Amino acid sequence: MTTPKFATTAEHILALRGQMKVLEVDAFVVPRFDAHQGEYIAAHDERLRFLTGFSGSAGIAIVTHDTVAMFVDGRYSVQVREECAGEMFSHYHLFDSPPETWLTQHLPAGSRVGFDPMHLPPVWFDRFANAAAPSGTTIQPVFANPIDTIWNEQPPKPEGQVVTMPLQFAGRGFDDKLAALIDIMTQQDVHFHVETQPDNIAWFLNVRGDDVAFLPVPLSFMIVARTGVVSWFIAPEKLNQDVKDALPDMVHCLDPDAFLHALRDATSDSVRVSIDPDFSPVAVRSALEDKGANIQVQRSPLTLTKMIKNPTELEGLRACHIEDGVAVTEFSAWLIDQVPKQAAIGIPLTERDAEAKILALRQAHASYLGDSFNAISAAAGNAAMCHYATSENSNAPILPTAAYLLDSGGQYETGTTDITRSFTFGTLPQGYAKAYTAVFKGFHALCTLQFPHGTQGHQIDAVCRRPLWDIGLDYDHGTGHGIGHRLSVHEHPQRIAKQVNHVDLAPGMILSIEPGYYLAEQFGIRIENVFEIVEGDKGFMRFQNLTLAPIQTDALLMDALTDAEREFLKNYHQIVVEKLGPFLTPAALAWCQTNVDQFS
Amino acid sequence: MTTPKFATTAEHILALRGQMKVLEVDAFVVPRFDAHQGEYIAAHDERLRFLTGFSGSAGIAIVTHDTVAMFVDGRYSVQVREECAGEMFSHYHLFDSPPETWLTQHLPAGSRVGFDPMHLPPVWFDRFANAAAPSGTTIQPVFANPIDTIWNEQPPKPEGQVVTMPLQFAGRGFDDKLAALIDIMTQQDVHFHVETQPDNIAWFLNVRGDDVAFLPVPLSFMIVARTGVVSWFIAPEKLNQDVKDALPDMVHCLDPDAFLHALRDATSDSVRVSIDPDFSPVAVRSALEDKGANIQVQRSPLTLTKMIKNPTELEGLRACHIEDGVAVTEFSAWLIDQVPKQAAIGIPLTERDAEAKILALRQAHASYLGDSFNAISAAAGNAAMCHYATSENSNAPILPTAAYLLDSGGQYETGTTDITRSFTFGTLPQGYAKAYTAVFKGFHALCTLQFPHGTQGHQIDAVCRRPLWDIGLDYDHGTGHGIGHRLSVHEHPQRIAKQVNHVDLAPGMILSIEPGYYLAEQFGIRIENVFEIVEGDKGFMRFQNLTLAPIQTDALLMDALTDAEREFLKNYHQIVVEKLGPFLTPAALAWCQTNVDQFS
Repeated sequence: MTTPKFATTAEHILALRGQMKVLEVDAFVVPRFDAHQGEYIAAHDERLRFLTGFSGSAGIAIVTHDTVAMFVDGRYSVQVREECAGEMFSHYHLFDSPPETWLTQHLPAGSRVGFDPMHLPPVWFDRFANAAAPSGTTIQPVFANPIDTIWNEQPPKPEGQVVTMPLQFAGRGFDDKLAALIDIMTQQDVHFHVETQPDNIAWFLNVRGDDVAFLPVPLSFMIVARTGVVSWFIAPEKLNQDVKDALPDMVHCLDPDAFLHALRDATSDSVRVSIDPDFSPVAVRSALEDKGANIQVQRSPLTLTKMIKNPTELEGLRACHIEDGVAVTEFSAWLIDQVPKQAAIGIPLTERDAEAKILALRQAHASYLGDSFNAISAAAGNAAMCHYATSENSNAPILPTAAYLLDSGGQYETGTTDITRSFTFGTLPQGYAKAYTAVFKGFHALCTLQFPHGTQGHQIDAVCRRPLWDIGLDYDHGTGHGIGHRLSVHEHPQRIAKQVNHVDLAPGMILSIEPGYYLAEQFGIRIENVFEIVEGDKGFMRFQNLTLAPIQTDALLMDALTDAEREFLKNYHQIVVEKLGPFLTPAALAWCQTNVDQFS
Repeated sequence: MTTPKFATTAEHILALRGQMKVLEVDAFVVPRFDAHQGEYIAAHDERLRFLTGFSGSAGIAIVTHDTVAMFVDGRYSVQVREECAGEMFSHYHLFDSPPETWLTQHLPAGSRVGFDPMHLPPVWFDRFANAAAPSGTTIQPVFANPIDTIWNEQPPKPEGQVVTMPLQFAGRGFDDKLAALIDIMTQQDVHFHVETQPDNIAWFLNVRGDDVAFLPVPLSFMIVARTGVVSWFIAPEKLNQDVKDALPDMVHCLDPDAFLHALRDATSDSVRVSIDPDFSPVAVRSALEDKGANIQVQRSPLTLTKMIKNPTELEGLRACHIEDGVAVTEFSAWLIDQVPKQAAIGIPLTERDAEAKILALRQAHASYLGDSFNAISAAAGNAAMCHYATSENSNAPILPTAAYLLDSGGQYETGTTDITRSFTFGTLPQGYAKAYTAVFKGFHALCTLQFPHGTQGHQIDAVCRRPLWDIGLDYDHGTGHGIGHRLSVHEHPQRIAKQVNHVDLAPGMILSIEPGYYLAEQFGIRIENVFEIVEGDKGFMRFQNLTLAPIQTDALLMDALTDAEREFLKNYHQIVVEKLGPFLTPAALAWCQTNVDQFS
């Protein structure tokens, strides 16, 4: 995960420009997307990083013969200027000055712009095509990606082994899921559904995989016919005999290279096909358009089915949160004990020490499979960078005079976790207590909210922000995201954020609640638990907590807490003690218990 | 305002069907809209009511030779079934089963559907046209409205007299407003702006009028050329010599009948014209399309300028809220005193008595011009109907054992008011105290909120609902609406509601905050004040109260109030006493003071 040297980057860009001449294009679009348009991609698909050195999780480069225009969102505006420094680059905000507008302003009329149609979804392609059309600029698909041509040491395509997701964890058999999908397709009068999201496919087929970090799924494509025949386009190397034997008869395994051909072969102008405009390659839509298919553009029905967890999935999530809670609680007790001691002997703990510790504590659980994302172990001002990651070069000491934040999560046999805790060690940084108290109040306000059926995430976001707003503070990220079941730790479509999200919250959804506050170069605070949505009073829903680990109370301004907030802290920690107690070391249990006692 | 008898309605419908045969159309669309697509229309334009008997403020009828399909929103679903009873009618929800879908399902392919192109805005026309296109059904403009043909006793077009809005109240001269509009038009490269919203025109020209109830504006159209020439299409009968003399030279008064012709004459394919898609007749767009104009479809720039009140407008609003507050406070003290007394002697006050009283109290102020909407004076279960209006047939007694609600407002020389108060008289209905306390808590929660710049209404709506949600209750209307300056009491575009509203709240905006709770057939509760948005902490805004009248505390569960809520009530009533005290009768002042004293 090191940043490529600038010299190498320059060579790559020059090599791509050579290919662009061969292809006779004036510009080439390089998004961070792979063929599945998700957050986690294989090393093989790190084309944007190979080309530009940019290592963020979202962004688009437009390479012309004059410049490499980098478009990233606010999370990465500092990082991109470091990783893509120098006069070869120009930098833009992905939303405020989007790439399609840049194209029209910087390319002469009638230009040709190349892109890989497997790596842009229809929504993005349409943005480029619509912006370019008035000036006669054309957006040209290039099926043989020129970066693959110039990338001598490109890692091979991943061949992670597929494993079966046992029914005891999945809770719902493939036959049942297929029948439900066929019902939806019948209602919509759709003959084929094209699924390109690996987590939807994994969930549907009750399998998991190992192709990309953090997201335990195989990269693959799938076409489901309303007749019940399922074509699964997956590299044969990923399937051992046991997995193959376990696959239902109606699932036919095919080579991924055959995906578009098969789609074309199945399609005619009398056929109706559903695709997701945000998460499928535009090449899929083009193939369907070529054959005159009637295309139903919609959010994948599997996304909408998978988002409501079944009782077994929910049970599994509750179980893995106990294991994860034990690890985080042990970590917390250890950290609070060790930070002052190590600092006193002049060998302070570092961010990477802490990262290693939480990893080891999670690994101690047999059902732990790996991390659910790149842990953020951040001391002092590093925690003010919301997407900070330690490295050999960045490994700050954790000092008792500063604050520390750990945002981490695991993949377990029975589910996925995500938790953030913020710690201090006796000496509070200036302004920390007031902000930490407000963050806690926001967390408490939202997680105790009852809200009516039909409520959407953007409608309740401010409930969490209000205590911060009251003192003139805010945080520049969402309040909550969906979480998968041994799948993506950032599972769409539900979300709690300022941005409009037109998905009704519903019982069985899993969401994080994670308000924070960040003071540049000083500290970062975030409190994050994961919740299940459950029914409340008639016509209402509420959040039911899943995450079990103490919320450090040292920095709370006790006088500013309401009776309800004190009661909440007491009850929450009582539950933590009850559920985790049997599995904790005496020291960790003792620390846990102090969080109950102080409110008694 | 009486409901037409069914027999008459039937005659009208049959007469229209006769006209439809002459026009060779299979259906005719009759919206409640006039040519300005606003909420308040002249008696001359009450075509929907004349035809169907429906008296609500929004709705659409589709008349075919078989049925009259009525489409209304949830507010009017009960009312429409009463007013449009009988087998001639069928009833639908305006949003859930919209009229354009109905058309495609109930008319044979290739049908002809007539409509008056002055009475449908482009957004509605497009809905009909897009829905009808696949089946070859055409939506035919009919310029000579057939209802006007059959309506023998149609009231004449209104000829309300225009008055000048003095600069001392308007705060900003016409020249300045024109210069600002020209700036916007220059930035947008627009040659002409077509303005069809009467309140925008009145605000722009610094005039007011008297064509429709409650909204003190002249119905008119306007075309502003970027050169600075303003063509004002207004019936000459509305302008006396003084007003004409006061008009700036660049304002040319023309007959409204010349509006579309003038628009066509001014337009060619090299001309760019801006129109509002929601509040202009589709005939305007069609005229522009006919001439090949480049049409800029956008929210009117005058809507976006007018929404931010200038300092003089704000000062005027503060002033008229004192006059209005005196009237409402006197009313409240009188009501609380009289209701038990009148009941005791067997001659209870009625809803209409109360309505007459508040009217008389407002009329006592020299600057009062009229009501800003049809007051809702509602006792007991009548208050559970959010749009209840008294009538000769509906005039319930106000009994001390039930609750009473008054929602009313005035137009004053210096501004517009809107206030709701809910009253009890010693004996509380079952469940009232808990709900009233939650409504107050919601009101308090929102009006004390500080929120960041960039916040939009839908993001903060839940802050107001939460106390109700906590106990499993909610209200089925918005939380707050914009209010004009001696203009519409429901001024768009800003709004606080569950529905998404993409308008950033901004300092200088005026909004109501009005949570409520309604228990069918038992009671209705609403607390409504009007607020100005002002700057708060750096980067934040907050609400500053304008409305001054005690909030009855008798029904509040005092033990359930927080210290902050008690402090708020004390401070609010202290301000009411200070600002209104000099103008109140001793009895009203004494009652006012009790609201302060109980929290001391």
